[in-house]
Amino acid sequence: MVFDLAGRFFGSLLLRQERPFCIHLRISCRVEDYRGQSIDLALSIRGREALRAVGLEESVVDHHGIAMRGRMLHNKDGTLREMLYDSVKGNCIYSVSRRYLNIVLLNAAEKYPEVSLFFNKKIIDANVDNGKLKILDTKTKTIEGVEADLIIGADGAYSTVRRIMAKRPLFNCSQTYIEHGYVELFVPVGTNNEFAMSGEHLHIWPRGEFMMIALPNDDHTFTGNIFAPFGTLDQLKTPQDFLSFYQKQFPDLLELIGREKLVKDYFEREPKTLISIKCKPYHVGKTTLLVGDAAHAMVPFYGIGMNAGFEDILLLDELMERYNSDFSLILPKFTELRCEDAHAICELAMYNYIEMRDLVTRKSFLLRKSLDTFLYRRIPNTWIPLYSTIHFSRMKFRDCIANKEWQDKVLRRIGWCVMFLIIGMLMAPFVEVLAEKNAFSTEYE
Amino acid sequence: MVFDLAGRFFGSLLLRQERPFCIHLRISCRVEDYRGQSIDLALSIRGREALRAVGLEESVVDHHGIAMRGRMLHNKDGTLREMLYDSVKGNCIYSVSRRYLNIVLLNAAEKYPEVSLFFNKKIIDANVDNGKLKILDTKTKTIEGVEADLIIGADGAYSTVRRIMAKRPLFNCSQTYIEHGYVELFVPVGTNNEFAMSGEHLHIWPRGEFMMIALPNDDHTFTGNIFAPFGTLDQLKTPQDFLSFYQKQFPDLLELIGREKLVKDYFEREPKTLISIKCKPYHVGKTTLLVGDAAHAMVPFYGIGMNAGFEDILLLDELMERYNSDFSLILPKFTELRCEDAHAICELAMYNYIEMRDLVTRKSFLLRKSLDTFLYRRIPNTWIPLYSTIHFSRMKFRDCIANKEWQDKVLRRIGWCVMFLIIGMLMAPFVEVLAEKNAFSTEYE
Repeated sequence: MVFDLAGRFFGSLLLRQERPFCIHLRISCRVEDYRGQSIDLALSIRGREALRAVGLEESVVDHHGIAMRGRMLHNKDGTLREMLYDSVKGNCIYSVSRRYLNIVLLNAAEKYPEVSLFFNKKIIDANVDNGKLKILDTKTKTIEGVEADLIIGADGAYSTVRRIMAKRPLFNCSQTYIEHGYVELFVPVGTNNEFAMSGEHLHIWPRGEFMMIALPNDDHTFTGNIFAPFGTLDQLKTPQDFLSFYQKQFPDLLELIGREKLVKDYFEREPKTLISIKCKPYHVGKTTLLVGDAAHAMVPFYGIGMNAGFEDILLLDELMERYNSDFSLILPKFTELRCEDAHAICELAMYNYIEMRDLVTRKSFLLRKSLDTFLYRRIPNTWIPLYSTIHFSRMKFRDCIANKEWQDKVLRRIGWCVMFLIIGMLMAPFVEVLAEKNAFSTEYE
Repeated sequence: MVFDLAGRFFGSLLLRQERPFCIHLRISCRVEDYRGQSIDLALSIRGREALRAVGLEESVVDHHGIAMRGRMLHNKDGTLREMLYDSVKGNCIYSVSRRYLNIVLLNAAEKYPEVSLFFNKKIIDANVDNGKLKILDTKTKTIEGVEADLIIGADGAYSTVRRIMAKRPLFNCSQTYIEHGYVELFVPVGTNNEFAMSGEHLHIWPRGEFMMIALPNDDHTFTGNIFAPFGTLDQLKTPQDFLSFYQKQFPDLLELIGREKLVKDYFEREPKTLISIKCKPYHVGKTTLLVGDAAHAMVPFYGIGMNAGFEDILLLDELMERYNSDFSLILPKFTELRCEDAHAICELAMYNYIEMRDLVTRKSFLLRKSLDTFLYRRIPNTWIPLYSTIHFSRMKFRDCIANKEWQDKVLRRIGWCVMFLIIGMLMAPFVEVLAEKNAFSTEYE
């Protein structure tokens, strides 16, 4: 009994070991409405490993993934600055269409006779202790009672399963909306049916308090998003306000998208909100488990949400192996291993918004980044930058952050040493003069 | 349309200015089950001011409140240490029976013809935008539709109104359970029908990781509570385990309560959980408002929860006066003025558990407390200790904490000065010796 995107993944992964289960996937709609609904998906190693485990990595990455080698920063004057994600080992993240991924996952799940797919099903109530659910058919408007041995709530950021768990004692939970919203905008194909900008980068227009980003699609368009305080978005009341704002902040986008299309796309949509979810525990007894966004929805600024969701399932698969499918052991262990890590990545995603919209343009950030790259190039197994541990390794999220803190400490100490050395070198001539003076004075005494 | 304890208060307070309202109080039960349900209520200035505004202070404080002048700490060896709440101005907090307070508030509300009381009513759904509610009658099991101009959700820590608001965008909310539980225990009357311990104190048995407390009741009994990690409580499986634990930790209580009654009371009840709630905003448009525990339930360790709830209503009353009952202005202002303060007191209540169970026995804490008292006595209008600002003033909770931080800073600086002075004084003889030596050497040169 599982739900939604991470849920679509279960059928394949959890049965690959020929386990004695029947899996019922109850899904709200066959293909999620992918336009204006959410930001493009970024795929990296955690998601890829999960896809690899069920033989889907190739078809997703090679056939439909668009490699993004780094960030491309757009300054107001139209100049560009490339910032590679991994200039040493050449790792990339991949822009993947949500629609395509949905189809691949559903097709894969459908191949297993033990998997049954039910569409237009919405959970409206559940007894998370005994596995009894009430499911609404959104087409026929009928409600059916269903019984499951295990409920896996992969039902997204606004999870009904989590809301039901939140009524139980000792379930901690927080939902935080940031005070910024976003609107999706689209960059059309360029001349000769090619990308209008580099198709190998995640494009960012960092402007301090707000930003635009754009990810390449495989039809050679880009899906862009403006992220800004609701206060800023609210001020763009008329097409005129909006266009003069874009003229000032993002003049190159005005060229690429065209005034008319830009205005149409923007005013067609309401700004959307961004939520971050933390909760603990993720399970109830041996009956109910939260995974994916239902357990740890995060703001999209680290591009790691889907990867973390897929990694949940990979961890679950590993625990099923270790504990021989005994869910009374698996579920508490899942909570134990995953909660703190998920909280850590939720916070990091929040921090990365500030990095993307503001810090990337600052000298201190650029200095730190070049130091990181310098050391990473010389001692690539010892000095791994934060972004690489998050996106290109399966290091626990907590350890990624601890590793970054260790690096900060080392660099601070080196900084002090260098400062003392410089002071010493600057002082040396005076010390020599004094020494000479003393020598003279001794001589003449 | 209001609910529960803080709600019982509305009828009286909000109508005292002869306002043109009808108020419908829908209440889950006439008198809350007060035994084993919750800790005794502590009443101090914020709650008293609200009661005073409707002429109820005297009947609650003078006739039924039991003045507690301070903490009485019980050591393991049976020795006692008194710690006054306000040794300068003699302010007290009052132990008040929840049952009695309920009756007083309901009787007062009933006197207004504009107030209608409905019992055994439970909200099951609400449209917080248009004021339409579904109310269940818990006796007849019938559901009625109700329409209100303003919904005031005073429906407690597990508020249904808040849960409905949590489904709306941009509503931030967190629920945190601490990993400690509590069990209520009762100290019977002593000889000659008098208090078995001092009836003028809040008794504490601080034991580091856990503690017992006891508050005097007006029938000369005490309501006690053991607060401890669930792990510790879980280990007390048999009466034998329990008694040997009490023999070691709280031998005087074993005497006062008696072994048999203690075991009976403890094993009759399951340990209860302690929840802390923060959310923001407290309102939706001009239609819905959260107050009291529904908005900011806190752990009970500062004894300020009910006072903060009553103060909400006092603030609301003040805003109704200021904005001439225009709720489109009142409700956003309430959120603006109250949210951060409530978050601050929730955190302080959490901290005070550590103070009560552990810090009170430490030398550093006792030193700080005597410094506080010393300065408070000398400059009582400038140096007001934290506890006094919280319980004996209506200073904003944020300002109480800022005031404490300022005091910490001052004391740290004084500490440094004193340390330098002492070092100076200790060094003085050596400096003198050196000076003398120099004087000699000069003499003989």
